[in-house]
Amino acid sequence: MGLDKPVIAVVGTGAVGGYYGAKLAQRGFEVHFLLRSDYEAVRTRGLVVKSCEGDFVIGPGAVRAYDDTRKMPKADLVIVGVKAREDVKYEELVGPLVKEETAVLTLQNGLGNEERLAEAFGAGRVMGGLAFVCIDRPEAGVIRHMDYGYVRVGELVGKPSARTARVAEMFSSSGVKCDVLEDLRYGRWEKLVWNIPFSGLGTALDLTTDQILASEAGEKLAREIMQEVVATANAIGVKLPAEVIERMIRQTRVMKPYRSSMHLDRQLGRPMEVEAIFGRPLRVAREAGVGVPRLEMLYEVLSVVDGANQATKRRSDGATKG
Amino acid sequence: MGLDKPVIAVVGTGAVGGYYGAKLAQRGFEVHFLLRSDYEAVRTRGLVVKSCEGDFVIGPGAVRAYDDTRKMPKADLVIVGVKAREDVKYEELVGPLVKEETAVLTLQNGLGNEERLAEAFGAGRVMGGLAFVCIDRPEAGVIRHMDYGYVRVGELVGKPSARTARVAEMFSSSGVKCDVLEDLRYGRWEKLVWNIPFSGLGTALDLTTDQILASEAGEKLAREIMQEVVATANAIGVKLPAEVIERMIRQTRVMKPYRSSMHLDRQLGRPMEVEAIFGRPLRVAREAGVGVPRLEMLYEVLSVVDGANQATKRRSDGATKG
Repeated sequence: MGLDKPVIAVVGTGAVGGYYGAKLAQRGFEVHFLLRSDYEAVRTRGLVVKSCEGDFVIGPGAVRAYDDTRKMPKADLVIVGVKAREDVKYEELVGPLVKEETAVLTLQNGLGNEERLAEAFGAGRVMGGLAFVCIDRPEAGVIRHMDYGYVRVGELVGKPSARTARVAEMFSSSGVKCDVLEDLRYGRWEKLVWNIPFSGLGTALDLTTDQILASEAGEKLAREIMQEVVATANAIGVKLPAEVIERMIRQTRVMKPYRSSMHLDRQLGRPMEVEAIFGRPLRVAREAGVGVPRLEMLYEVLSVVDGANQATKRRSDGATKG
Repeated sequence: MGLDKPVIAVVGTGAVGGYYGAKLAQRGFEVHFLLRSDYEAVRTRGLVVKSCEGDFVIGPGAVRAYDDTRKMPKADLVIVGVKAREDVKYEELVGPLVKEETAVLTLQNGLGNEERLAEAFGAGRVMGGLAFVCIDRPEAGVIRHMDYGYVRVGELVGKPSARTARVAEMFSSSGVKCDVLEDLRYGRWEKLVWNIPFSGLGTALDLTTDQILASEAGEKLAREIMQEVVATANAIGVKLPAEVIERMIRQTRVMKPYRSSMHLDRQLGRPMEVEAIFGRPLRVAREAGVGVPRLEMLYEVLSVVDGANQATKRRSDGATKG
């Protein structure tokens, strides 16, 4: 199959897409990068990765960079790394890359991304990946990898297949710890049990994970939010055990202080993925009739923070123009 | 009466107590300041006010500074400016200053301060003042007055009296805009209608008033929180009209971007008045059976922020000692 010697396309070379794409390219895979604002920087200086595990560059002579999907070759694997915004047009962005056997792997955050890709390209193509990584893009063409990097991949439809194993192996052989998810939906909800309290409170309150857990009030609130997410998952048939909460609190206590990607988006004044990570789970809870007052309020305050961020950006854009 | 040529004691010469005390002293009133950590600085350099309305100093030769209540003369008016913390011992702090006719005016934030003073010294002595001022204390003995300054004073028991008018006049003649509150409880709750959303969201989310109102989501959430406070006030007989919400949104839109005192406390790593401004109103709502889910969550997230702040402080105190 095409994944033996795959043509890989990274759509959305932000921090996440850029980092994993660069790791695969560094290993020798043929990776084509779709860029927008960073295109000129990557053409001239290459794709620079400043990583806690060692810096490297996919040099300007080696990097396959494009400013338009239509100029790219068809791919065996498309890795979707664009921000999980409501207004992304996947048909335009990904469509030209798709041939008969193309697999489409989304590394995006939150809920609903696989479903949107399935609508556009058929559910059978779609894979989902959960990226556990602390990463940002401090300037055009430069990715700063601060911590972690682990990926879990799974299939939208059915059980893991040879394809799933091969994709996991591609990552592993490129120095990215990766395993296969038996049940992608379970994995997504399990990640939300962590993400919603820690990314939510962290971003809204501007606190790192250790600061959230520094007080009894913080641990209590994180647990209560987790309980709301577990209850929602259970109500739609994703059977997360209650002990997942205990385990995540324990793991978070021993891990290095962490800022989520949404927290970094806030700090950099970028649009935040409030809908994908909070709005969609909230709608699932409402439809299932599960009371989630804390998730509700988190969604509201994050919308306020995102709104303030974007208003500041509009003002400074205006000031630059004026 | 003693307020003709009053002896004034300021208990808690932080930003608020220090500012209003200094204004009265500058006008020529006899003001005695109780200080703790700032005592040496004020003795040697005086009480320095850097004000948006003009800087001034109550010089080291003129300032009446004390490090112990028991060294101070009995007062006709005690102005209480200490932080509204649960563990303040008013008998010790204020008791030695009280004689037959002494009035005790609290300029503290939130609910329950007059009641605690009434318990200690009798309700008839107690006056309450609402300070609308943007102020902080960047270093020992230095007060930075950034904006506003307006004060409203009222009586805990009964209607305004000659005493109330005289205290208001003392402030007015010292260059502090001041008026008399017909109903102190009404004034407190009216201020909470503003404080709870704007001080609460501002501090928790690290946003100024204009940033909160920069998005539809922000205005909507502020209104919803205000509605919870109005409903609580109404339930205990404080008849705030619904139009107060409209008026406050309108006034906040036109005022200069504002950071509350609690927001400044957060930024300076100081303990926050979460109980006085949020915990006590929340308990009133619970006892009255009013549903206040947003106030509940605000109280919880502010407790998390305060807990994180204090944990950071403990760590850095430890580091200094170690």
